[in-house]
Amino acid sequence: MTQQGVDLLLLSVGADLPYFCGYEAMPLERITMLVVPRDDAATLVVPELEMARVTPYSEIFALRPWAESEDPIAIIAELMGKATSAALGDQTWSGFLVDLMTAKPNTNFRRASTITSAIRAVKDAEEIERLRTASRAVDTIAGRLQRGEIPLIGKTEAEVSAELGRQILAEGHDRVNFAIVAAGENAASPHHHAGSRKIAAGEAVLCDFGGTMIGSDGVGYCSDLTRCVWVGATPDRDYLEAYAVLHEAQAAAVKSALVGTPAQAVDQAARQRITAAGFGSYFIHRTGHGIGVEAHEDPYIIEGNQEPLVSGNAFSVEPGIYLPGCWGMRIEDIVVATDGGPDPLNLADHHLAVVEA
Amino acid sequence: MTQQGVDLLLLSVGADLPYFCGYEAMPLERITMLVVPRDDAATLVVPELEMARVTPYSEIFALRPWAESEDPIAIIAELMGKATSAALGDQTWSGFLVDLMTAKPNTNFRRASTITSAIRAVKDAEEIERLRTASRAVDTIAGRLQRGEIPLIGKTEAEVSAELGRQILAEGHDRVNFAIVAAGENAASPHHHAGSRKIAAGEAVLCDFGGTMIGSDGVGYCSDLTRCVWVGATPDRDYLEAYAVLHEAQAAAVKSALVGTPAQAVDQAARQRITAAGFGSYFIHRTGHGIGVEAHEDPYIIEGNQEPLVSGNAFSVEPGIYLPGCWGMRIEDIVVATDGGPDPLNLADHHLAVVEA
Repeated sequence: MTQQGVDLLLLSVGADLPYFCGYEAMPLERITMLVVPRDDAATLVVPELEMARVTPYSEIFALRPWAESEDPIAIIAELMGKATSAALGDQTWSGFLVDLMTAKPNTNFRRASTITSAIRAVKDAEEIERLRTASRAVDTIAGRLQRGEIPLIGKTEAEVSAELGRQILAEGHDRVNFAIVAAGENAASPHHHAGSRKIAAGEAVLCDFGGTMIGSDGVGYCSDLTRCVWVGATPDRDYLEAYAVLHEAQAAAVKSALVGTPAQAVDQAARQRITAAGFGSYFIHRTGHGIGVEAHEDPYIIEGNQEPLVSGNAFSVEPGIYLPGCWGMRIEDIVVATDGGPDPLNLADHHLAVVEA
Repeated sequence: MTQQGVDLLLLSVGADLPYFCGYEAMPLERITMLVVPRDDAATLVVPELEMARVTPYSEIFALRPWAESEDPIAIIAELMGKATSAALGDQTWSGFLVDLMTAKPNTNFRRASTITSAIRAVKDAEEIERLRTASRAVDTIAGRLQRGEIPLIGKTEAEVSAELGRQILAEGHDRVNFAIVAAGENAASPHHHAGSRKIAAGEAVLCDFGGTMIGSDGVGYCSDLTRCVWVGATPDRDYLEAYAVLHEAQAAAVKSALVGTPAQAVDQAARQRITAAGFGSYFIHRTGHGIGVEAHEDPYIIEGNQEPLVSGNAFSVEPGIYLPGCWGMRIEDIVVATDGGPDPLNLADHHLAVVEA
């Protein structure tokens, strides 16, 4: 905060608050906000009816419960004192920022991520092991998909998505963050919403799923994995050929993820191979995103990000090829940059699984 | 917008966007934003990789996909033109508002709810029937709880919460919004997080649960119900006596919810009875909140809200009594104010159920 010239950190919903202290604000119209002055103790402004939830944290910060008849914005404004620069959690509801700007017209507000994201992006050994545990849990589910132990033929995407969600929880996650299931031509939409389309033999199914495992300290770490499965006897030749390109591109990108390498070079490593094979215009997203207490955080593996990877950066490597109206494919692992080289946390098989069930 | 002197409406995550057009923005660092000029057609600025999700909506608004290498804030800023006043969705991530203020320093930003919430707070007949369908679905689950068909003794709160979540989905909801299960003294915390505490005979369990049922038009409506169950043979006398007070207070508040009555009078109707019985300081929250596409929206049933109820207002009536260290209780129904009087959407039995299982 001193380096950035910021007097105050203001944290509400989003991952910064649980990252630093284990408490997660409820995403409600009743505001919860941790006010952290640069040179003084922190105070949590919290709805009175949530006091029982926060008293275990009273050693970390002072508590300022607000009753239903009080104005919490006025309370926060008073705690902000004479601050001229405040860094506000990026996911704080804008309505509260509008109210705070009205209450404190002379305070300059910026994104808290200018302070927090560089800290969060470097994982220590314990964080890496938590990410590994979450990653291995989704690997287990991917293995079942690849061995045909999760029924696909005749099921709708939504049914398979629900089953993946159940397994994400059964394998130790506390939350399902997403379970994209996209069959056939639907997989050409990278963020397809699993729907009523039934899965049939003779097509591929893309599954991209993950959740959050919350530790006893209240801090959660995310998993995120993508694998594709061909349903039926023999994959179509064009799909197989593109998959071979993607498989090689993903492995090359993982291999390139060395400490000191600019983030964009990992994107380039995947993109160059896909482009060389003629699929460049069908790879319509960045190669990856950081992961930790949030499913998407710094560092982003994208053209233009020249920041060199540092030891402890954890991120997805997930190139894809999407042929509109035909099919889509993506292979995604979580990888940690370490001084010993890239450490892939996901070990589920990378070949195209073929299942007949 | 003309009445409020607003040039532009900017909608991102939150319920305004699906309410008006059926499309829900993904809550990601890649911004989705509908730019609605007061006197011109609307444009959805959307990540290119989500285009397949939004093309069905292209008759409602123009689409401006942004590629991974583009700056979406610059695109939105250009679409904003010379707007001097913009109303921004209340739940839009603050980080984006910070970026927009930098790009458009001469634009005044306010809460979109100043435009949208009065519209959303008045439900038409179809919306009321959707709310009724969702309410009756959770009534079905409450009936099972009250008949002892959902195992409680020896189960943890978290296990019962997970079971309620499964039933919320099985009864036709698309999302579980919350499933508070609070046993014994834990129920004294109104927003208790269901945990590892096991439920035993000789105590009450408070269950407050609800979800969202999304229609074929992409618009979802919420349910929200609270009932308490005594586990064991005979309820403690102090609990029974307080419950009788609460039961009467809740019924009185529902009865008072007439068109033209100030919202705060409904709160007062419940609070007066609870206070008269000596429990006033243990009723630590407002009596209710509006409900619709969001679980909490206008009108709020709270002291200070002098707005008269209008026909079509839908809201919870949920007084509670919370004795720290001992027990807590709440009874909650969703009620619609109509010209024919209050229309309670929940019909689950209001008496204290006693179950021995």
